[in-house]
Amino acid sequence: MIEHIVFGENCLTLLDQRLLPCERKHVRCANWQQAVEAIKSMVVRGAPAIGIAAAYACCLAAHEQIDRVGWREEVDKALAEIESARPTAVNLSWAVGRMRTVMRANSFLNAESLYNAWLKLAREMHAHDLEVCRRIGEAGESLLKDGDTVLTHCNAGALAASGIGTALAPVRMAIAAGKKIKVIADETRPLLQGARLTAWELEEDNIPVMVACDNACATLMARGLVQVVITGADRIAMNGDTANKTGTCGVAIMSRFYKLPFYIAAPLSTFDPLAKEGGGIPIEERDECEVAQMGNARIMPANVHAYNFAFDVTPADLIAGFITEAGILRPPFAESIAAALAGEAGRQ
Amino acid sequence: MIEHIVFGENCLTLLDQRLLPCERKHVRCANWQQAVEAIKSMVVRGAPAIGIAAAYACCLAAHEQIDRVGWREEVDKALAEIESARPTAVNLSWAVGRMRTVMRANSFLNAESLYNAWLKLAREMHAHDLEVCRRIGEAGESLLKDGDTVLTHCNAGALAASGIGTALAPVRMAIAAGKKIKVIADETRPLLQGARLTAWELEEDNIPVMVACDNACATLMARGLVQVVITGADRIAMNGDTANKTGTCGVAIMSRFYKLPFYIAAPLSTFDPLAKEGGGIPIEERDECEVAQMGNARIMPANVHAYNFAFDVTPADLIAGFITEAGILRPPFAESIAAALAGEAGRQ
Repeated sequence: MIEHIVFGENCLTLLDQRLLPCERKHVRCANWQQAVEAIKSMVVRGAPAIGIAAAYACCLAAHEQIDRVGWREEVDKALAEIESARPTAVNLSWAVGRMRTVMRANSFLNAESLYNAWLKLAREMHAHDLEVCRRIGEAGESLLKDGDTVLTHCNAGALAASGIGTALAPVRMAIAAGKKIKVIADETRPLLQGARLTAWELEEDNIPVMVACDNACATLMARGLVQVVITGADRIAMNGDTANKTGTCGVAIMSRFYKLPFYIAAPLSTFDPLAKEGGGIPIEERDECEVAQMGNARIMPANVHAYNFAFDVTPADLIAGFITEAGILRPPFAESIAAALAGEAGRQ
Repeated sequence: MIEHIVFGENCLTLLDQRLLPCERKHVRCANWQQAVEAIKSMVVRGAPAIGIAAAYACCLAAHEQIDRVGWREEVDKALAEIESARPTAVNLSWAVGRMRTVMRANSFLNAESLYNAWLKLAREMHAHDLEVCRRIGEAGESLLKDGDTVLTHCNAGALAASGIGTALAPVRMAIAAGKKIKVIADETRPLLQGARLTAWELEEDNIPVMVACDNACATLMARGLVQVVITGADRIAMNGDTANKTGTCGVAIMSRFYKLPFYIAAPLSTFDPLAKEGGGIPIEERDECEVAQMGNARIMPANVHAYNFAFDVTPADLIAGFITEAGILRPPFAESIAAALAGEAGRQ
């Protein structure tokens, strides 16, 4: 298993996902500001993973305030910045929200006792994510038949979460159960998370994977090279509308056209009780240089600009089901999602 | 206007489209073998353009045989190789076919007289393409309303043909008629013809253009940023099924989903009377290194492979119409296409 988020000795160590697969290098975040910068610059990415990284970033913020006066105010400021490091994935505010709840529910005498409580919670959240991914894998495994090829977009694997990942968890579980499963990874422009990360982590696990340009999706489906589509999610509204990496919605539309099942695999923490439908989900626009340059080389004319919406919203009615730790949620989603979240709340 | 195919002094000079927009360099083909290599390696690309380049390549083959014995056999061999330089665009075999017809219909005493006849025909075909593009522009201009944004895939502009291009001809004509039109160019992985070529030639003409990753198509449409889609074609079957650069079919599917009109702009020479429907069109598979590398840098793990189908086939029922020099062909396509080709045959 890839350990890409490690916290120890008041330092958050992250595998630098920007450099994979060419280089395997780590970034050490000794304070919360460095952790925020790592999330913004996508050293770490993937909704569950940035939730965990954010939880540890909160711990760094509390640790910095040990033995200082005015520590509550400083910690509050840090939390606000950590929470807004990236806007679309709800896991970030979910993680910070859980930290805040602990802070409000207890009268911590000093920053050190807050730090200890937060570190305990962050480690629990990290361990819980590992278990959640395993349960997503168990729930989704039944959707895959021996011989199937799964198309996935972006990276919703181990590198986007913990353990076996989210969208790739059913694949790993099906292979563990003896089924022959192949994966096609959309390369996922502009940052190539599919070609770089999904291909890398599957090859590390000896799982057969082919890469295809994003625009090859229709022809792969028309040729019968895909049987099932599974992607991750960054935020899911209560009606099932789903924000995920740009391109996901197009894949869902093509899945509908070619009558292929399109699933979202995500932990319940990705569902946003405050988002009634997809229209309300904030969509991050990133610097156009991500599209205009490959490395340092410009690939388009100097004076031409590029769109760079980092996420899109897939309408709920294109989604066959949500693969979660509470099982597969089927339409009508308003009901199945509400029931799953109520069950989860009951367990907490 | 960009003169990217020039024939003079028994030399075919081509603007090297692989290097645009960074470098403006020409490749000189002094013999037909070099011309074939230029077509294969995509120094020149775009269905009408490679038809014209192929016609000049035939001239080079005839010129090489002047004063040689056994010239007919050598010329035949050259024609076969020129014709099969790339498999999908029908314009290549259409151009070589016209050369062959001239050769068979006349009893040329020597290679020099054949060369003279072919050069005359090649120049006529080149001039005719210029005129055809103008007429495509006139026919398509009426489809665009003041304020429209046109999405296009790959490059079907001046660089893919002569004069004002095919898919970009209606845009240029509408702007000339005083309408405000913007273009969104899909970047078109793997070779980025949209980001590199479409963006470059539109910017040269001061036409507003934005680039977007191929996978942004659905989100651009969902946001109302696109009103009309126009692409070119490499081969059109008699029922209207259309082979064009990979990604075109996906754009057509998304156009249908978002209720946007999807048009193909192409000369009548792109229709293949021998192809009843799209299933019979040969689809070129190119070297996977086009996907796996950016320049010389590998962007995916060393041992992982990539799909690289260079074209896909858009089913006819996703196409609103074909913009041709004979006007806009509407469904039912079997009838409108046959009528247009019969009219063209009548004029020849």
